[in-house]
Amino acid sequence: MGDSERIPVGIVGASGYGGIQLVRLLLDHPKLELVYLGGESTAGKPFAELYPHLGHRVNLSVESVDVEAIGDRCQVVFLSLPNGLAYKMAPRLLDKGCKVLDLSADYRFSDLQTYKTWYGGDRDDFAVAPRAVYGLPELYRDRIAEAQLVGCPGCYPTASLLGLAPLLKQGLIIPETAIIDAKSGTSGGGRQPPKVDMLLAEADSSFRAYNVGGRHRHTPEIEQVCSDLAGHEVLVQFTPHLVPMVRGILATIYATMRDPGLVRDDLHTIYSAFYRNAPWVRVLPSGTYPQTKWACGTNLCYIGIELDSRTGRVIVMSAIDNLLKGQAGQALQCLNLMMGWEETLGLPQLTFYP
Amino acid sequence: MGDSERIPVGIVGASGYGGIQLVRLLLDHPKLELVYLGGESTAGKPFAELYPHLGHRVNLSVESVDVEAIGDRCQVVFLSLPNGLAYKMAPRLLDKGCKVLDLSADYRFSDLQTYKTWYGGDRDDFAVAPRAVYGLPELYRDRIAEAQLVGCPGCYPTASLLGLAPLLKQGLIIPETAIIDAKSGTSGGGRQPPKVDMLLAEADSSFRAYNVGGRHRHTPEIEQVCSDLAGHEVLVQFTPHLVPMVRGILATIYATMRDPGLVRDDLHTIYSAFYRNAPWVRVLPSGTYPQTKWACGTNLCYIGIELDSRTGRVIVMSAIDNLLKGQAGQALQCLNLMMGWEETLGLPQLTFYP
Amino acid sequence: MGDSERIPVGIVGASGYGGIQLVRLLLDHPKLELVYLGGESTAGKPFAELYPHLGHRVNLSVESVDVEAIGDRCQVVFLSLPNGLAYKMAPRLLDKGCKVLDLSADYRFSDLQTYKTWYGGDRDDFAVAPRAVYGLPELYRDRIAEAQLVGCPGCYPTASLLGLAPLLKQGLIIPETAIIDAKSGTSGGGRQPPKVDMLLAEADSSFRAYNVGGRHRHTPEIEQVCSDLAGHEVLVQFTPHLVPMVRGILATIYATMRDPGLVRDDLHTIYSAFYRNAPWVRVLPSGTYPQTKWACGTNLCYIGIELDSRTGRVIVMSAIDNLLKGQAGQALQCLNLMMGWEETLGLPQLTFYP
Amino acid sequence: MGDSERIPVGIVGASGYGGIQLVRLLLDHPKLELVYLGGESTAGKPFAELYPHLGHRVNLSVESVDVEAIGDRCQVVFLSLPNGLAYKMAPRLLDKGCKVLDLSADYRFSDLQTYKTWYGGDRDDFAVAPRAVYGLPELYRDRIAEAQLVGCPGCYPTASLLGLAPLLKQGLIIPETAIIDAKSGTSGGGRQPPKVDMLLAEADSSFRAYNVGGRHRHTPEIEQVCSDLAGHEVLVQFTPHLVPMVRGILATIYATMRDPGLVRDDLHTIYSAFYRNAPWVRVLPSGTYPQTKWACGTNLCYIGIELDSRTGRVIVMSAIDNLLKGQAGQALQCLNLMMGWEETLGLPQLTFYP
Repeated sequence: MGDSERIPVGIVGASGYGGIQLVRLLLDHPKLELVYLGGESTAGKPFAELYPHLGHRVNLSVESVDVEAIGDRCQVVFLSLPNGLAYKMAPRLLDKGCKVLDLSADYRFSDLQTYKTWYGGDRDDFAVAPRAVYGLPELYRDRIAEAQLVGCPGCYPTASLLGLAPLLKQGLIIPETAIIDAKSGTSGGGRQPPKVDMLLAEADSSFRAYNVGGRHRHTPEIEQVCSDLAGHEVLVQFTPHLVPMVRGILATIYATMRDPGLVRDDLHTIYSAFYRNAPWVRVLPSGTYPQTKWACGTNLCYIGIELDSRTGRVIVMSAIDNLLKGQAGQALQCLNLMMGWEETLGLPQLTFYP
Repeated sequence: MGDSERIPVGIVGASGYGGIQLVRLLLDHPKLELVYLGGESTAGKPFAELYPHLGHRVNLSVESVDVEAIGDRCQVVFLSLPNGLAYKMAPRLLDKGCKVLDLSADYRFSDLQTYKTWYGGDRDDFAVAPRAVYGLPELYRDRIAEAQLVGCPGCYPTASLLGLAPLLKQGLIIPETAIIDAKSGTSGGGRQPPKVDMLLAEADSSFRAYNVGGRHRHTPEIEQVCSDLAGHEVLVQFTPHLVPMVRGILATIYATMRDPGLVRDDLHTIYSAFYRNAPWVRVLPSGTYPQTKWACGTNLCYIGIELDSRTGRVIVMSAIDNLLKGQAGQALQCLNLMMGWEETLGLPQLTFYP
Repeated sequence: MGDSERIPVGIVGASGYGGIQLVRLLLDHPKLELVYLGGESTAGKPFAELYPHLGHRVNLSVESVDVEAIGDRCQVVFLSLPNGLAYKMAPRLLDKGCKVLDLSADYRFSDLQTYKTWYGGDRDDFAVAPRAVYGLPELYRDRIAEAQLVGCPGCYPTASLLGLAPLLKQGLIIPETAIIDAKSGTSGGGRQPPKVDMLLAEADSSFRAYNVGGRHRHTPEIEQVCSDLAGHEVLVQFTPHLVPMVRGILATIYATMRDPGLVRDDLHTIYSAFYRNAPWVRVLPSGTYPQTKWACGTNLCYIGIELDSRTGRVIVMSAIDNLLKGQAGQALQCLNLMMGWEETLGLPQLTFYP
Repeated sequence: MGDSERIPVGIVGASGYGGIQLVRLLLDHPKLELVYLGGESTAGKPFAELYPHLGHRVNLSVESVDVEAIGDRCQVVFLSLPNGLAYKMAPRLLDKGCKVLDLSADYRFSDLQTYKTWYGGDRDDFAVAPRAVYGLPELYRDRIAEAQLVGCPGCYPTASLLGLAPLLKQGLIIPETAIIDAKSGTSGGGRQPPKVDMLLAEADSSFRAYNVGGRHRHTPEIEQVCSDLAGHEVLVQFTPHLVPMVRGILATIYATMRDPGLVRDDLHTIYSAFYRNAPWVRVLPSGTYPQTKWACGTNLCYIGIELDSRTGRVIVMSAIDNLLKGQAGQALQCLNLMMGWEETLGLPQLTFYP
């Protein structure tokens, strides 16, 4: 297929970490062509000035954001903006016939009241919001394939939900015992605005929790999907931590098993079956636990499973690259489905180690 | 007090990370004098050849290990050796009248059968082992003060138990709900023998769990003390993780409260009272959570407390320097008590930040 | 082209860092098929047991090293072994008709006496050694294309020589003023045997020089090529340093200009012209300096140039991934040339940032 | 000596990295008492809110800056402010009789024109500036002892000049051949205002040069002192780099020897003699090179010396903690001299390793 047949794609919010991931991924995608990069604070600048290492591959400049023009030039638009901006653009882009993938929280919630409680804002896109599909392909593959608007999951919810889903879906655990102790590299904090506690001088050689006690905005997102899987409302204990590294999330998930008779290999079988058709989830052999480095630079989620017969608990470890499977990679995985392509098309599956 | 009045101290196993911490601490202690450094693999070498940065302060060479001679020259002996060696030396040192502080696991267990199950070995020091006191001063201050032999706690147990103790002692939680998700810098793996997975090239920029499912040897140690505090046998879920940094442990501890009526400030009051006389534990103000960097280079344990009223769980975060409060610093804290000195004498309480 | 038409390739020494890079690269190469993995210490083990993150892509097990059998099964053999082993295998592999690429120092020197002086050993492959070509494609592209045996450059020499070559070749600097202050991540130390000073606990949060004063074995290798470029013998000052990170080398190169009249843009023009046909060297715009992160995960060398008119010195900064352009990637680049393929075939050119 | 007899000290600019170092050091100093902390952006806040880990030791709040009041309450004032502010306060503080130590660049230059060229501003403190002494005790001990106003050196100049001084002072090198390749942790960038390139996500796992070609503001400062030592104007080549770590500077210094007959041990003797009375400089044994970690948390400068007989160059490595010997520690060392106390009083000389 020649370049002329490629689908034209735009990114609004191109200069942040979400944006640079998307640019990088699109450069390697065989059926997409990046034609537009939008951003207010960097408008007018050649993209290669922001990220000189891509100078040999990207000739585009960042443009100011004109939604009508974007809709005319692009068949697909990724919105990679701070929360509260996407819902002001998405309706018009949908009207222009674009497929829209939003990387912010704006379209993750089926109940707009939950969104307002956690993110504030004064939304009036009541006609559009219900059309959004939650972009976690391993759980909502068919709906995503038919969607025009996808609300891409947060990084923590992706790792957490892929780890918990088989247990909840099959009723293997007592849902209210679920505890998610999650650890993330600092790139999840974004490139701007800079925060003192994300300086290397502050965050290196140290480890800490934050937003403890269910205060992190990813909590309601995790609970929404857990409740959907369990068939009734589920509360989970979610605690995020900051690891002195750039990329990667490991979620360590604890839950009490309903049936004390199951052994570790049973769980391995159940997980393998659950993810049989999921090319981006790798269930590790019994006794092998994931490390974040394996997933970095790929769209993979590695899952390790352990059972403690003394306590009756299952412990699931789920590792992803927070900026790929946890953000931009998953968005592209969704787009592949929306376009009717292979779910793996143009996405990286091999990290460099070490 | 002149140097001639200082108490002569020896360290067996001086070249490892425990040894170098002890050397460093003893150089600053006003009432102790380091007179002997022992080690088999480095015997004959000037200590300053192993650690050139101390060349201006340490003139001693490492000597081979002659227990009789050590007993003659030292009033206090720190044993900083791999597990399974201390119990072959301690009895003779005690006979010579020495105070002995063991940094290995050999004297941590009141039940030798538990030791054998987890550490193996063929112990016959039945007369001596029961005299050992578990060296966690915040819980066993009085017994330590009268002990001649102290089994110093592991690093993870120190962080975990200081975080859990007030809850268990006062019956505030349902003990079997306790989950300890602990994270450590890699210096806990020791200086030798080198392990591939502790190379910077392997461990940097990555995060992972290990010994999942209650398989870590610190589990029985934690459970022994928890059971003691609760007054009945307690099993806990303990999972260690490796953080890409040198020093520091953060334990994130979850447990379900018995009384849903307590609020966060109540817990703060309870913890502050529990540690009122503990100069090395700092209970942080409500809403402040510790980071490991604050504790590094000090003998302090910082504790943060949070309550999730939605789930009914308390979440306690406990941060220490794994090599100081988690190892050598705590040993010296014990010695201060054994000598009848101030618990804080000669121990660092101010980190450098950042 | 179907898989059956792919060229069968083997790797001897597959379990180290050179080996795992080659495996990773070969999995993405469209014209090569990995059919053999050899190693003594890990013989018999599934490769996916050594590197579980590749379990979904590699089914091979490591085999013990039988040179005859390798020659029968492979058309191309990469030797990724400690120094002093390749020259015992290469002659027989060449006899069997294989193309051989050696990643060790064994075939880097045109003068075997230099090799012996720096690496020792008792070589008797006098008939074979002279057939080896030094595998730096930007300087020796044509000779590599016709070679059957390539001695792949060291990591430091690659970064250093690509930075210095245009200056030396065009006689722009006084050669004996050249100083190379090089800094490398710790993965250059290899995966085994483990060394204490490469532990994360030792190397993290610290920076140091080593082999100062021309004592590093890469010195004669750099000087051999510099002399070749200058047309007379050249001595350089080379000092390696250890950076607390996994991958990447930055060489900062100083030299005094012969002609004080040149300006920075002149040098930019000269470098750009010199590397006009070199797809793996990116000369950065004036005023932009490289960072190692840009190169990591790619086969690229980024070069930045600065001129200090006050001192009359040029300062060149050259950044590579020490394990790719500095090792395995460059080897594959050589193979592409040896096979008559595009120099860029199957090699990564886009890092993930940040 | 009781607390009532301690000298009252104030810090203006207490919330940055310079400020927190000074606070930390003053808490351990036996003859000084911290009575005032000043800062505009954090005025009114308890200092323990900014740095909770010091909550057990610091009760002061940050106050807004009233120079008259400071002069009344303090006998000693440290100014730890961005460049260009100190010279507006110092004259009045001196008038009130205070001893003033400025950590910025304002009082480092004997020629105000050099200051203006590199730092700008419209200075009119012509009466005061000439009274300032450059606060590098190893070179200007006697003048510092008699000064009322000290301009404390930059971090890079401290490491560079201590490494170069014996060579220049004794005429051992050809001055114009001096090249300083310096590497610093990122805390040198300060705590505020935050810069994108100092985020952990940007700076970790990467290495780069900046301000190449003599563009860094520390260049004229280094040259001023080098010229003073050499007795004539000296230009040096100075290139700073950023290391992915928090603290520490290593300067690798190259220069061509005048006398090719000297050997390494001669240089060791010369350096040892030069620093005979300098308690904060440790000349390492021949063959031992410093690493930054050894110096961190101390006021020490470790120096290693190597000679390359092939090239005729000396290579000196100088390691310091950029925030202590490179900033706040050295300021306190100067104050000790100004007060007529031991140069080592209250300053840390033992790091924690690893």
